[in-house]
Amino acid sequence: MTPPQQPPSSTPAPGSVAALGEFGLIAQVVARLPQGPAVLLGPGDDAAVVAAPDGRVVVTTDVLVEGVHFRRDWSSAHDVGRKAAAQNLADVAAMGAVGSALVVGLAAPADLPADWALGLADGLREEAELVGASVAGGDVVSGPCVVVSVTALGALEGRAPVTRAGAHPGDLVAVAGRLGWSAAGLAVLRRGFRSPRVLVEAHRRPEPPYAAGPEAARLGASAMCDISDGLLADLGHIADASGVAVDVHPDAFELPQPFQDAGAALGVDPLTWVLTGGEDHALAATFPAGTVLPPHWRLVGQVGERAEGAPAVTVAGQAWADGGWDHYRR
Amino acid sequence: MTPPQQPPSSTPAPGSVAALGEFGLIAQVVARLPQGPAVLLGPGDDAAVVAAPDGRVVVTTDVLVEGVHFRRDWSSAHDVGRKAAAQNLADVAAMGAVGSALVVGLAAPADLPADWALGLADGLREEAELVGASVAGGDVVSGPCVVVSVTALGALEGRAPVTRAGAHPGDLVAVAGRLGWSAAGLAVLRRGFRSPRVLVEAHRRPEPPYAAGPEAARLGASAMCDISDGLLADLGHIADASGVAVDVHPDAFELPQPFQDAGAALGVDPLTWVLTGGEDHALAATFPAGTVLPPHWRLVGQVGERAEGAPAVTVAGQAWADGGWDHYRR
Repeated sequence: MTPPQQPPSSTPAPGSVAALGEFGLIAQVVARLPQGPAVLLGPGDDAAVVAAPDGRVVVTTDVLVEGVHFRRDWSSAHDVGRKAAAQNLADVAAMGAVGSALVVGLAAPADLPADWALGLADGLREEAELVGASVAGGDVVSGPCVVVSVTALGALEGRAPVTRAGAHPGDLVAVAGRLGWSAAGLAVLRRGFRSPRVLVEAHRRPEPPYAAGPEAARLGASAMCDISDGLLADLGHIADASGVAVDVHPDAFELPQPFQDAGAALGVDPLTWVLTGGEDHALAATFPAGTVLPPHWRLVGQVGERAEGAPAVTVAGQAWADGGWDHYRR
Repeated sequence: MTPPQQPPSSTPAPGSVAALGEFGLIAQVVARLPQGPAVLLGPGDDAAVVAAPDGRVVVTTDVLVEGVHFRRDWSSAHDVGRKAAAQNLADVAAMGAVGSALVVGLAAPADLPADWALGLADGLREEAELVGASVAGGDVVSGPCVVVSVTALGALEGRAPVTRAGAHPGDLVAVAGRLGWSAAGLAVLRRGFRSPRVLVEAHRRPEPPYAAGPEAARLGASAMCDISDGLLADLGHIADASGVAVDVHPDAFELPQPFQDAGAALGVDPLTWVLTGGEDHALAATFPAGTVLPPHWRLVGQVGERAEGAPAVTVAGQAWADGGWDHYRR
């Protein structure tokens, strides 16, 4: 921890991180973080050491800010931990890799309840365990608001990384994982509702299809990315990086009952959430035509040639207007 | 970037990061970040891929918060970038490793000048280049204050990591790099002065002795850490991790003229800065007795047996009272 430039307040609130102290907090956090097999040296030294068996390591980082990416009244510390780990581990999976370790930075006001920091650690640990990873190190500092920064490492297991740049005209476009659930849950919360609960829970805690990433790589995926900005936006990233166009088939998607209920209640076409909602951290990939995909990879479109001046992504051949069918906005 | 839970303000300030936009800012930042040889896949995909030639990667993370770890009126963006990179790369060096890549998270208010973000990137790049590393990826999000989180990766080049836990009674204690310069510079700034300039500059931008870390490992260092909390505190970490005691020889240190000038002006014994000042990111290491050290490793003490209830670290055999010879505090 870097020494602060301002001396700390002299009267820490009971049960706060300041009352526990930096080293007390770190000791309690570390005690909750058993180390997985990839961590050769865990917390407690200047740095951790993580195995990178094929001589390469995948690395990605994301920052979550209170009031921007989460609200403490909408999400528990445990949820924030799971979400922070999930969005990084989904990026690792989107390269076709398997997560091995996280390192985590936490900036927190002195009066943050220590239990919040411990709940965060629990959430990070549990999400990491889903892929066999663990939290190998971190940093705790004081700050005016809660900021959680997570860096995930991963292993490619000898495979080439699946980038966004390899899609070819004629390739299939497929998605693994949920689409629009988080956006629908957020819309529900913003209107002051707490149900449909399954959508609210999906916003609080995404469930990325981690195993589908390495699976896609083994199946010969030509391009892949995780869906954090929305399906159309993220397919646009693949289209731009690959110099191709993508057409999405709007009838490819199921619209489960909670979606239809929430859409009716909020005056939103639920397909909008599916096509433009981010934060579910599903995986979108392109595959050579003829690839036989397991059932949890849903075919949603096709890669085509990119004509000069044409849109990167179309829905049933048409450009998708920003905001789309969102009646609430109109 | 995670989609914000609040819609952005509609009138971005000219020249701000909001005016440039997330993708515009990222494009300008990435254009300033040439990739070093260890980066197999750089910015622009879901994750980067970094070489880990011996099958292991060293990883460490630090968070810097505006108003806590830096002030924009005391340090330029370039200085903050160099400092943020330096404190992480010093942690890598303290394991006996060589930095290979950084990933960086930036939370920034919408009205932060885009030039500040670009200056930060320049500082990160320049500091990383000192060890042959580069900035391989990152994340930019909105937030109420400026938070910079840096994760550094490094390579052990086939060696065992040098931890804090290997010191033995009889070992020599040595330091490479500057001690107390940053603390003295901070004391000067806090009193409203801008000179001695060399101390103020040392506070704005540490100069860790990166090469001394792998060198110490090759020389057989039994324990090592970087000095971020102050020499006595960090030697305490080695002593505790190793189950030993460390005695520091107070006459081992030079007190250069700017130190004496600043100490006289501020009423501080400059030895206090040397023994307790952090943020210079010097390296402290222990070596088996008889190790012949290059001249840039200064012998500063000796490892002894740790008696029950005895202090972890002494100065000339005496416990060092908190605040020590700080006449200003008295």
